[in-house]
Amino acid sequence: MAVNGYGTIGKRVADAVALQPDMELVGITKTRPSFEARHAQEKGYPLYVAGEGKPADFETLGLKVAGTLKDLFAKVDVVVDASPDKVGKENRRLYEAAGLRAVFQGGEKPEVADASFNALGNFAACRGKRMLRVVSCNTTGLARAAAVLDPNWGVDHWDATLIRRGADPAESKKGPINGILPNFQLPSHHGPDVRTIFPDLSISTTAVVVPTTLMHVHVNHVRLKRAPPGSEAVLEAFRRTPRFRLFAAWEHADGTPQVMEYARDRGLGFSDMMENVLWDAGLRLDGRDLYFFQAIHQESIVVPENIDAIRAIFERAPDGRSSIAMTDQALGLRPP
Amino acid sequence: MAVNGYGTIGKRVADAVALQPDMELVGITKTRPSFEARHAQEKGYPLYVAGEGKPADFETLGLKVAGTLKDLFAKVDVVVDASPDKVGKENRRLYEAAGLRAVFQGGEKPEVADASFNALGNFAACRGKRMLRVVSCNTTGLARAAAVLDPNWGVDHWDATLIRRGADPAESKKGPINGILPNFQLPSHHGPDVRTIFPDLSISTTAVVVPTTLMHVHVNHVRLKRAPPGSEAVLEAFRRTPRFRLFAAWEHADGTPQVMEYARDRGLGFSDMMENVLWDAGLRLDGRDLYFFQAIHQESIVVPENIDAIRAIFERAPDGRSSIAMTDQALGLRPP
Amino acid sequence: MAVNGYGTIGKRVADAVALQPDMELVGITKTRPSFEARHAQEKGYPLYVAGEGKPADFETLGLKVAGTLKDLFAKVDVVVDASPDKVGKENRRLYEAAGLRAVFQGGEKPEVADASFNALGNFAACRGKRMLRVVSCNTTGLARAAAVLDPNWGVDHWDATLIRRGADPAESKKGPINGILPNFQLPSHHGPDVRTIFPDLSISTTAVVVPTTLMHVHVNHVRLKRAPPGSEAVLEAFRRTPRFRLFAAWEHADGTPQVMEYARDRGLGFSDMMENVLWDAGLRLDGRDLYFFQAIHQESIVVPENIDAIRAIFERAPDGRSSIAMTDQALGLRPP
Amino acid sequence: MAVNGYGTIGKRVADAVALQPDMELVGITKTRPSFEARHAQEKGYPLYVAGEGKPADFETLGLKVAGTLKDLFAKVDVVVDASPDKVGKENRRLYEAAGLRAVFQGGEKPEVADASFNALGNFAACRGKRMLRVVSCNTTGLARAAAVLDPNWGVDHWDATLIRRGADPAESKKGPINGILPNFQLPSHHGPDVRTIFPDLSISTTAVVVPTTLMHVHVNHVRLKRAPPGSEAVLEAFRRTPRFRLFAAWEHADGTPQVMEYARDRGLGFSDMMENVLWDAGLRLDGRDLYFFQAIHQESIVVPENIDAIRAIFERAPDGRSSIAMTDQALGLRPP
Repeated sequence: MAVNGYGTIGKRVADAVALQPDMELVGITKTRPSFEARHAQEKGYPLYVAGEGKPADFETLGLKVAGTLKDLFAKVDVVVDASPDKVGKENRRLYEAAGLRAVFQGGEKPEVADASFNALGNFAACRGKRMLRVVSCNTTGLARAAAVLDPNWGVDHWDATLIRRGADPAESKKGPINGILPNFQLPSHHGPDVRTIFPDLSISTTAVVVPTTLMHVHVNHVRLKRAPPGSEAVLEAFRRTPRFRLFAAWEHADGTPQVMEYARDRGLGFSDMMENVLWDAGLRLDGRDLYFFQAIHQESIVVPENIDAIRAIFERAPDGRSSIAMTDQALGLRPP
Repeated sequence: MAVNGYGTIGKRVADAVALQPDMELVGITKTRPSFEARHAQEKGYPLYVAGEGKPADFETLGLKVAGTLKDLFAKVDVVVDASPDKVGKENRRLYEAAGLRAVFQGGEKPEVADASFNALGNFAACRGKRMLRVVSCNTTGLARAAAVLDPNWGVDHWDATLIRRGADPAESKKGPINGILPNFQLPSHHGPDVRTIFPDLSISTTAVVVPTTLMHVHVNHVRLKRAPPGSEAVLEAFRRTPRFRLFAAWEHADGTPQVMEYARDRGLGFSDMMENVLWDAGLRLDGRDLYFFQAIHQESIVVPENIDAIRAIFERAPDGRSSIAMTDQALGLRPP
Repeated sequence: MAVNGYGTIGKRVADAVALQPDMELVGITKTRPSFEARHAQEKGYPLYVAGEGKPADFETLGLKVAGTLKDLFAKVDVVVDASPDKVGKENRRLYEAAGLRAVFQGGEKPEVADASFNALGNFAACRGKRMLRVVSCNTTGLARAAAVLDPNWGVDHWDATLIRRGADPAESKKGPINGILPNFQLPSHHGPDVRTIFPDLSISTTAVVVPTTLMHVHVNHVRLKRAPPGSEAVLEAFRRTPRFRLFAAWEHADGTPQVMEYARDRGLGFSDMMENVLWDAGLRLDGRDLYFFQAIHQESIVVPENIDAIRAIFERAPDGRSSIAMTDQALGLRPP
Repeated sequence: MAVNGYGTIGKRVADAVALQPDMELVGITKTRPSFEARHAQEKGYPLYVAGEGKPADFETLGLKVAGTLKDLFAKVDVVVDASPDKVGKENRRLYEAAGLRAVFQGGEKPEVADASFNALGNFAACRGKRMLRVVSCNTTGLARAAAVLDPNWGVDHWDATLIRRGADPAESKKGPINGILPNFQLPSHHGPDVRTIFPDLSISTTAVVVPTTLMHVHVNHVRLKRAPPGSEAVLEAFRRTPRFRLFAAWEHADGTPQVMEYARDRGLGFSDMMENVLWDAGLRLDGRDLYFFQAIHQESIVVPENIDAIRAIFERAPDGRSSIAMTDQALGLRPP
């Protein structure tokens, strides 16, 4: 397979593919030289020049170029498109012309692919499709949580306030530096996006942007259809599910700075935190009303989902749980 | 009257009292010299030394000291206590011993006073009490909004997510610098605090802290008992109420940075924004479900409420609306 | 006179002109409606539509339009150009065609005007010119300090590190949110820019950008030609000069957050701080080596300079000190 | 050896020791349970309870306790003291009483140890001492650079402005959120601290604190005694020295956010950046005057120095370069 676009998501997917026993990374693409291109080279990933990039610009700097997009497409079965938002739509034509399957990211509209995808949410429905779209980081976080709550107790209605990070850590041109920016799209697009995975889910979402780079935080109020026996039962349901990490109060992971510190201690690639993060102390059940916080690492949460999307396309796993188990073991994520 | 504690709230209340036609500021208190003490002097506010402060420390620096707390208490009828959180509780004994009436701030527990106070919310019930507590900035913001929605359409249930500023602009020792900190008190104390004003209101609140100094933002979902005719009717109800400022989309006051820029343009004292801030584009009605953002300037929103609380104590205004009109005219706030 | 461009600088210059006894504000220009346009209207400033703006867009919203640029130009003698960086260069042709004098801002290149201007630095040399350019905020801060040090003790060499705010308070799209960005222009353009005022000054400057909105801070090391008698003599030289504000240690204005808090207490327009800010404790003299910090409020420091530049053009003041005294009294700045 | 205090520095030193072929980590100490204690356990580091901590508090949570400080001290030859600032001074008595050698951190005063240490700077002078103090992160960064410049061209005088991060990433209680805080200690303590390594170096340092968590940045102006042949020669001298990482312009590592992004790509423990970071474009030579930026990762830069300090104490390496080569190879740092 190939990764088209070696940025925040692309470089992570490339590493993740390289770790899978049943996948082979044939190449990655860049449009201009950077420390990331150099590092890809050092890791042995063949580098193909995309877009307006010129091979000579790379070669002058000692970066070996394996070819162009066309060369790359001739060698692979599937492309993970991790190009900037909205560029994927244009790329789709290239993939179709080359007879390739493809995985797109959540920055594209749902129409870019045959279906939107979340491993816990709708793996079965996506098996055998040629083109899948992994939903965005916030939507993935909500869909994973819905995959726990809906089957167990039914969701009557879900209200989520999304407190979004202003920029990724290395996006130093973006603000805000000091202030809170409400998103006047009411409800925000995340609710409809979750329904690309769970079509019948009643969910409305509201978003604000704040001056931080680390993680998003979701403040959730879910009215369930059936009252769980207690908050511990809900916590345990999350704990038993892959791709959730719950922190106990004594661990003192009290906010997103401490959660990302934990991630650095743990030491997976890029110090990532690919799980939905919940806190035992940050969940309260009041009859059928469930309140809980969850934190979402915007840079990495969709990485394992991209891997599972490839398996869904090629029907290489019988169901979502099997694919998740393979993916997570290869990535070093602890099974539940 | 006197202001005990000349910090963020105290200095604003002192200026606000000085602007009222029916009140006289007799003095303010400080425990240590600072540019704020100097400025109080320049404005002609007699300075009394409180706590562990020593008059000599001030006089050495050319700051004239009018006396001690005891001297001040002998000259006034009422004290606005703007001392640090929890100190008010201890001060209450001093005020009682001196036969004084007092207004406390929301950092104190409700038991510090005979009643908790909000001008739009429960002025009538507070008339004639000797000791009142102005509820905190976030609670004041919620109570004002409740005073609009509850009489008009009834509140079935209110969910509010409070996105709190990490520190005031000059509190440079406090963080966080980069991160989101959930408040694990679920629901947060703000809901019960609103019920000190509206005892029957069904409200649950959740809070997070973010790295900004300017304003809090509330994300509200209110299920009303009766459906309003449309969102414009709700906007108009807010517009017709004092202490609300609604921004039209074309004004481009798109977030808290722009709102505080507007406040600087407007030029009231300290560049304050004493109103609840709503945005026309930031309110959506879906049957009985109302979603809206409001921004709260934590430093100043309670200032007019302190003035009204004094009037309630002395029964100097027949009702809340009359007191509000007097206060706001003196402060330069535009009537609705 | 007219203000062309009613943004951060323009709105301040408009207010400052309105306060001067010897100047008349005929109108301001805007290209699109905003809360700032509305506020200009409320203050009674006639509003002219500039650039691609359409009068109808304003009038629909109840904002009265007095005319176009052409109409405005027919009524004034001088324009303060406060349009975005580099646009002033194009505007110059319009001013010339209309036979107008003009004051430009420091975002333009020196060639835009007949001379670059700083009131303490080179008022005399600028008298009678038709077109002046007020140097940028950082350059103004350095030029003012040079106007104190150079005449008194001579400057052998000046090294300044400029720690720049990332964005103005309302520029919420700009970062960085978390990080320090060195400016690889070594030395930065500020040194040469100071030499447009003091041609012989040996100064080299280095700049970094940090995540704050309040003020710039300059870290200065000046090797003087003659050793001052002591640090107190240097402090006193700054104190005796207009447009400097020195904070004593006991005032506890320990950083830019506290300085801007002081500015809000003081209550000049926009809570501005138009003086160079120094700290008594932030200056050290070691023989001929002088080290000192100064903070610069990027939004307002050039405002009084624009007023003086107008007086220089029309030769309405015999020298810089006289103009400064008139300007500062009208603005409410304390004389030294 | 043992690590006393398993926080930001301690956990890194523990991992670094575990990677060295000639050292054995016998245990680490914690005073209270946390996610870090749990992770230490998962890595197999025996956990000893220090200070006021109680073994039962750990064991209840499933964290196995190997013993107390006393037990630990009986098993080791040397302790790396990574306890909070100023606690090391008290700990020294314990180490002496137990007959142990020790390495302290730069938060302690120089008197805590027999000598202050920097691997490039004064390894030879420290060989065989019983107690060493690794200088602080900023001082280590300056000392390393001095070890390059002084032998090659001589340092006439060095002026450094240190732009310090306000807090480490997980220190979410510390500010400032928005503002620049000058350090009124002029010159700052860093200059004298560098002279504990290079006693004759003429250096004066000035510091400010800014709202970022990632790295410090030093703005250096060094007047050399002898003019280098050109800036490329200086860059090459840095490149040839271990523990320096220079970024080329084409790598687009333009500020501290991008440098730490590179560190996450590289993937050493904790996504650390243990080298002094310089930029090719961020160095300018003007005769004998050298200007350059360097960025310092405050959390990790002293980690390899602690390893070398242990080798110096036990005379396990003939000189600094040999020890550095061993340390860096084990840590995965690229040789120059």
